[in-house]
Amino acid sequence: MTENGVYEIAPLRAQARKVKNDSYVLSTVSIDKRNEILKGIAEALMDKADEILAANARDLKDGEAAGLPSPIMKRLVFDEKKLDGVVLGLRDLYKLPDPIGKVLLERELDEDLLLKQVTCPIGVIGVIFESRPDALVQIASLCLKSGNCAILKGGSEAKHTNRILAEIIHDTGVKHGLPDGFLTLLELRSEIDELLKCSGSIDLIIPRGSNDFVRYIMDNSDIPVMGHSDGICHVYVDKAADLEEAVKIAVDSKTQYVAACNTAETLLVHEDVAGAFLPNLQKALLQKDVVIHATEDVRAIVGEAYGNLCEGVAGEANFKTEYSDYVINIKIVRDLEEAVQHINTYGSHHTDAIITEDGKAAEDFMNGVDSAGVYQNASTRFADGFRYGFGAEVGISTGKLHARGPVGLEGLVTYKYKLYGHGNVVDDYAEGRKSFKFKNIL
Amino acid sequence: MTENGVYEIAPLRAQARKVKNDSYVLSTVSIDKRNEILKGIAEALMDKADEILAANARDLKDGEAAGLPSPIMKRLVFDEKKLDGVVLGLRDLYKLPDPIGKVLLERELDEDLLLKQVTCPIGVIGVIFESRPDALVQIASLCLKSGNCAILKGGSEAKHTNRILAEIIHDTGVKHGLPDGFLTLLELRSEIDELLKCSGSIDLIIPRGSNDFVRYIMDNSDIPVMGHSDGICHVYVDKAADLEEAVKIAVDSKTQYVAACNTAETLLVHEDVAGAFLPNLQKALLQKDVVIHATEDVRAIVGEAYGNLCEGVAGEANFKTEYSDYVINIKIVRDLEEAVQHINTYGSHHTDAIITEDGKAAEDFMNGVDSAGVYQNASTRFADGFRYGFGAEVGISTGKLHARGPVGLEGLVTYKYKLYGHGNVVDDYAEGRKSFKFKNIL
Repeated sequence: MTENGVYEIAPLRAQARKVKNDSYVLSTVSIDKRNEILKGIAEALMDKADEILAANARDLKDGEAAGLPSPIMKRLVFDEKKLDGVVLGLRDLYKLPDPIGKVLLERELDEDLLLKQVTCPIGVIGVIFESRPDALVQIASLCLKSGNCAILKGGSEAKHTNRILAEIIHDTGVKHGLPDGFLTLLELRSEIDELLKCSGSIDLIIPRGSNDFVRYIMDNSDIPVMGHSDGICHVYVDKAADLEEAVKIAVDSKTQYVAACNTAETLLVHEDVAGAFLPNLQKALLQKDVVIHATEDVRAIVGEAYGNLCEGVAGEANFKTEYSDYVINIKIVRDLEEAVQHINTYGSHHTDAIITEDGKAAEDFMNGVDSAGVYQNASTRFADGFRYGFGAEVGISTGKLHARGPVGLEGLVTYKYKLYGHGNVVDDYAEGRKSFKFKNIL
Repeated sequence: MTENGVYEIAPLRAQARKVKNDSYVLSTVSIDKRNEILKGIAEALMDKADEILAANARDLKDGEAAGLPSPIMKRLVFDEKKLDGVVLGLRDLYKLPDPIGKVLLERELDEDLLLKQVTCPIGVIGVIFESRPDALVQIASLCLKSGNCAILKGGSEAKHTNRILAEIIHDTGVKHGLPDGFLTLLELRSEIDELLKCSGSIDLIIPRGSNDFVRYIMDNSDIPVMGHSDGICHVYVDKAADLEEAVKIAVDSKTQYVAACNTAETLLVHEDVAGAFLPNLQKALLQKDVVIHATEDVRAIVGEAYGNLCEGVAGEANFKTEYSDYVINIKIVRDLEEAVQHINTYGSHHTDAIITEDGKAAEDFMNGVDSAGVYQNASTRFADGFRYGFGAEVGISTGKLHARGPVGLEGLVTYKYKLYGHGNVVDDYAEGRKSFKFKNIL
């Protein structure tokens, strides 16, 4: 390993074992120390602003020379505004309560035998992220705050920026006495496959990137993966919907930011209101340049006259597609049950909304739909850690074990049971000489 | 499928999809209804006691004819006492609060936008369990209480007993209006491999059985697995230990029930107290017929005279072995740090104890050891759902995501975010026309 925590060669498995050992040291570092380091990192980033901006200029120049597409070039930018943003993020994080050492349960099993369930770090987190260099600072600081070692792999387009950012964070931590392995930056794409094999050393992988990439990670690792691949979200317009509100929410869910995972891909509408609702929706979608894939019965209602109705009848292939574009499927359903079934069949268990004024229908929908987020009369675009008030966000999980939905710091901790005795042995209880009292303290 | 919920052939993947759909129905069944069915099952089991005991007699006869080893024959027994036990268990479960629908977080994102984080069932749980037929009733009822569909595969030795128990539970549930797929019993061993491939339909696998079997399941499924394979637990005798207490706890941890996963396999002792402690320990272990694998320095202290010291020097291979027998490794360590490192290297992250009167040493040990249970001055044998006061237990997890340690009903639930709006769209917040309030209600 070079001084700045970057591996030049790939003895990755041995290094991951070292990081694992370092994680035991990091797990005992006090919250005061961890916060002090977060503060130190913010200061060091500002002190070295010139170096960071110069490194980013180099990445941008390389990217331009390589002809990178403009969305990637845009994500690559790390200017003063971005720097201010990450420094502000570090300060917000500094203020958040310690996620570790929280007592979840405290129970006297007997007068002289106390059980505590206490949160603790997970250990070593591997994060593979997209081209935005600000993600590196955000993820590294979230892992540090929660007492976890981080092994990061960023986008190669941001190589120079990532390298200097990782170096600053790494050196600040080590200067404050953290073990060397608390932060490791990988630079080779080939190391991702190596990383996925380190199941004894890495406790959790968080992939952030394209659907295909995330699915590849999920399919190729024994290590638990937290995140989501597809984001196929739905808006269902119930027969008891406020139809004006429905248009507004459908348009926002589809168009507020088409590339996001919480964007709606399919709109379902109850047959009773399809005639009244769909022509207005079509007009509203036209204003945002959204094109429509429609089922046969929808086509009978919405006209081709507007020019935003695609040829052909929408079917399975459409319902399974995350367009990430100004494209939407529209389908008529006979009832709420059919809507729920469609969503559970074709959705990605991310976020789905019902538009209805009927409270019972809303609850049936929200209980029946098997997704991390189930909304009544609100845009699917609200599915986001910031909008939920979590502050920092690790990612959005569509898995059902551990954290689900937008995941903040609490997704980076687990718990352990601490038992405090005075020479207690099980034989006394098994043989009836003593008996459990089970008195909850907390 | 036959009437009693048993598959004769194996169209398992299609059936698992049907169960998945049924799980959406089960997830909306009220707690009153679920409790009513639990009551109904207890009654039906008592009503059909004769049939159950006759089925078990058949299994026992077949087992005897097949020459099954006596520990298996013992586990196979389902007599009136066992029946009383499961009926009592059902009544205890009936009294437990509803694990689903619990509001974990309630927050106003804005005056007209309310976020709730609410517990809900996971969906479909696959449980593969050992030969004890009482486990079938326990697991099926835990899944029902938590609103999950269960696909069970029991030991083939208990075929007839399992079949009648599953039939009674299945029929009682269906009579009360549950979807047919709420409980499915598999009978063919070949179906286990099929089950592991149903990642779209089955949300969680809980394997209970031998280490090798559990590891096979963990290595061969894309579905999340909850449980543990090895149970390599440690007792560390610190320099500040009460040495009499240390002998008592070491003996209980090793001998109270040698076949259990929470039994200690290795004893570590601080070099400062090794001379005073080890001879007494050796004598106490001898009384329980425990044989010792010792490192070189331990051999210099404990004598071969007692006849319970094995030949050869204990090393890596010993430290990695779960003996499940009256055998223990003993090693001297220079300090607490070496003890922690040994445990994190060779242990199975299950349960480990320190014997010490030094509170600081205890906290360092308990924070540094990366295990589900970390104990001060208590036997490792306490690691158990019943002894923690959880009532029913699904199993013990050594994973760090989702539930860890002994797992009760809460390990069978996840949560979803419910968002209640009034036509709220993200664009209003993105464009500054509205701003988030983030007011916690709960």
